[in-house]
Amino acid sequence: MTDSVAPSLVPKLLPVHAPMAQFPMVEGELFVGGQKLSVLAERVGQTPFFAYDRSLLCRRVAELRAALPEQVKLHFAMKANPMPAVVGLMAGLVDGIDVASAGELKVALDAGADPAEISFAGPGKRDVELIQAVAAGVLINVESSRELPVLAAASKRLGLPARVAIRVNPDFELKGSGMKMGGGPKQFGIDAEQMPEVMAEVGRLGLAFEGFHLFAGSQNLRPESICEAQQKSYELALRLAELAPSPVKFLNLGGGFGIPYFPGEQPLDLAPIGANLQALVKRAAKELPEASLVIELGRYLVGEAGVYVTRIVDRKVSRGQVYLVADGGLNHHLSASGNFGQVIRKNYPVTISKAMGRSAQCSETESVSVVGPLCTPLDLLADRMALPAIAEVGDFAVVFQSGAYGRSASPEGFLGHPASVEVLV
Amino acid sequence: MTDSVAPSLVPKLLPVHAPMAQFPMVEGELFVGGQKLSVLAERVGQTPFFAYDRSLLCRRVAELRAALPEQVKLHFAMKANPMPAVVGLMAGLVDGIDVASAGELKVALDAGADPAEISFAGPGKRDVELIQAVAAGVLINVESSRELPVLAAASKRLGLPARVAIRVNPDFELKGSGMKMGGGPKQFGIDAEQMPEVMAEVGRLGLAFEGFHLFAGSQNLRPESICEAQQKSYELALRLAELAPSPVKFLNLGGGFGIPYFPGEQPLDLAPIGANLQALVKRAAKELPEASLVIELGRYLVGEAGVYVTRIVDRKVSRGQVYLVADGGLNHHLSASGNFGQVIRKNYPVTISKAMGRSAQCSETESVSVVGPLCTPLDLLADRMALPAIAEVGDFAVVFQSGAYGRSASPEGFLGHPASVEVLV
Repeated sequence: MTDSVAPSLVPKLLPVHAPMAQFPMVEGELFVGGQKLSVLAERVGQTPFFAYDRSLLCRRVAELRAALPEQVKLHFAMKANPMPAVVGLMAGLVDGIDVASAGELKVALDAGADPAEISFAGPGKRDVELIQAVAAGVLINVESSRELPVLAAASKRLGLPARVAIRVNPDFELKGSGMKMGGGPKQFGIDAEQMPEVMAEVGRLGLAFEGFHLFAGSQNLRPESICEAQQKSYELALRLAELAPSPVKFLNLGGGFGIPYFPGEQPLDLAPIGANLQALVKRAAKELPEASLVIELGRYLVGEAGVYVTRIVDRKVSRGQVYLVADGGLNHHLSASGNFGQVIRKNYPVTISKAMGRSAQCSETESVSVVGPLCTPLDLLADRMALPAIAEVGDFAVVFQSGAYGRSASPEGFLGHPASVEVLV
Repeated sequence: MTDSVAPSLVPKLLPVHAPMAQFPMVEGELFVGGQKLSVLAERVGQTPFFAYDRSLLCRRVAELRAALPEQVKLHFAMKANPMPAVVGLMAGLVDGIDVASAGELKVALDAGADPAEISFAGPGKRDVELIQAVAAGVLINVESSRELPVLAAASKRLGLPARVAIRVNPDFELKGSGMKMGGGPKQFGIDAEQMPEVMAEVGRLGLAFEGFHLFAGSQNLRPESICEAQQKSYELALRLAELAPSPVKFLNLGGGFGIPYFPGEQPLDLAPIGANLQALVKRAAKELPEASLVIELGRYLVGEAGVYVTRIVDRKVSRGQVYLVADGGLNHHLSASGNFGQVIRKNYPVTISKAMGRSAQCSETESVSVVGPLCTPLDLLADRMALPAIAEVGDFAVVFQSGAYGRSASPEGFLGHPASVEVLV
């Protein structure tokens, strides 16, 4: 799909979206969870909705297991998609759940995740949250030395160990990341150079030290950058292990695996990452013999398995430009509108799926803008995009790559429109 | 307040925030609603919260009444702040409420707003919303010819008039606006050049025509641009009135009045706008004798009357940079984090207010970054800002200019932290 430009100006050079083959399109209708979208919409009973495909989630985990060494533990960072049903499914597929608040901790525990395999990271953990984490028996990724005495007091009062890993702010960053979360001054973790002091304090307070958490950045599509960050994280952890009060059992090397959102982006090649981790696993067997290596993924596990489905309420032409006005937009899916961390707005992959009984085949495209119902020009799901020239009122405008940072990362109440719903199919 | 730069590089040239004199600061404590912030926080019982100051809302309306001709009607666009108590207060102060969805319509009606003085604008109104609006007897700002037959059918079935104004997409835009909402191709309103046809259709369908709605843009700090847009809107409405099936009773000239958010911005000068409207009122008395001129304001009425109050959970230093980690951030106040329509992130005005019993006076400043509790570098309330060097854990970090597009425009559920609350004091 490409933006609309006069044909003479468009050779084959314009970048296009990666194909969204995970959702088949048959006679103008998308299939989600093996079901016609129009039927699924009737089952859901309303638009807009998010649908997450169970089989795609399973497949993604299986692909990762195949590509990465079996010794590497796979964690799901549920901040990417906290729908309880998704967390429940993922808890059965992966080796652990990473939570970012006491609210997420509750969802993970309710979903049946094993507390032994839950870890809790986040700057600004409130005292009450630290106490909840100790009471739950989960691993706390300590982000600040301020947390240490609070954890020690909770441990003493509850008669339970305070399981801690130290989140380290490394002295390097993940190149080419959508977001940089390590290196330089940061609110995340404890600066690597402060670790001697902090490790001594962990020992003094009798906390149950388990390891390190390093997270250099997110949404990266360059395997060589991810490999480099993993190597550097490993090397740093190895140096820090010498300071630790007890052997490292848990080494979270972060995540950062990206998915293709925008024209020109390609899926991440896992092969070099698998080879890199294989080498690290081998080293760790000798150098950190008690340690499990952990990769923590959110978006990469769930992002491509989800769609955001809106109904087209109006088709209007203003000064030559076709607008499809949908019944939802930035209120449900802020990141697809381009208002969440993007500097220059680009289109997510979007398509049109016909309503019940309206199957259509069309090889022609038209330049359309898909907008939501809000009274703001920010409410834009597709900006002058070449879409199949079949869209009528009642059809569906569908945003792909919507399984992560969709509903929960959006201002649902903005302008008082109905909330979206989520289904796992 | 200025960003931190080596003193030798900072002459008096660096732009600063406009003073936030509406909230007095006494011995290190902010006063909101005439109350010490620390006492208010105890009354609220939690942080973070939004507090809106009743007397400032009243004062702002009074100032506008004094500056604008008395014949001009003042409407509150409740999308800026849909808190029911605020809408209830505003309904008693202004001449009408503008709603953007059936959800907002319910809040306005519940708040006691007179349906005769409610207008409903928004692209992508669903059929059920149009029917609700006819049943409620409010004025519908028609954004698309698609709405006309739906309104006619609802009117017939209910035996009630369908009161309509036509939202016109003008052939000009509001220069220097934060957001452009008219001119060129737009999803908003009906292109001016399509009006002959649409007016004829309104007549044919027997809809109760009342006037026009023109809205060129928002968040504008240049009076000359606002005056120009008002003049052009008036001229356009005058031309369109000739096509109308009945006299114009209602002419909404839009809003667009901005407030100072960022360093270097100054409050809007109302005097030239008042004079401009005075001239238009005079002309309208002759040229559109049955018409009320309406100004529709959201942000300008409520934005400066609100603060967002967080509690500092941690004070940490990473590689020389001080971080104050607050218990809320982007999840409650997306626009202050710079992730809502800003191309280049700038700091909102922020201050520190001492906790109960900790009054402090300090003329020194330090460069601090105020961040929220989320695991994302986007969660930033103040980036290397010079703030009073008094901030400790337990104190409050306060964001000014937070009365509009705060809570309702934010992804409250993101990462599962507690919701904010709102109080009107």
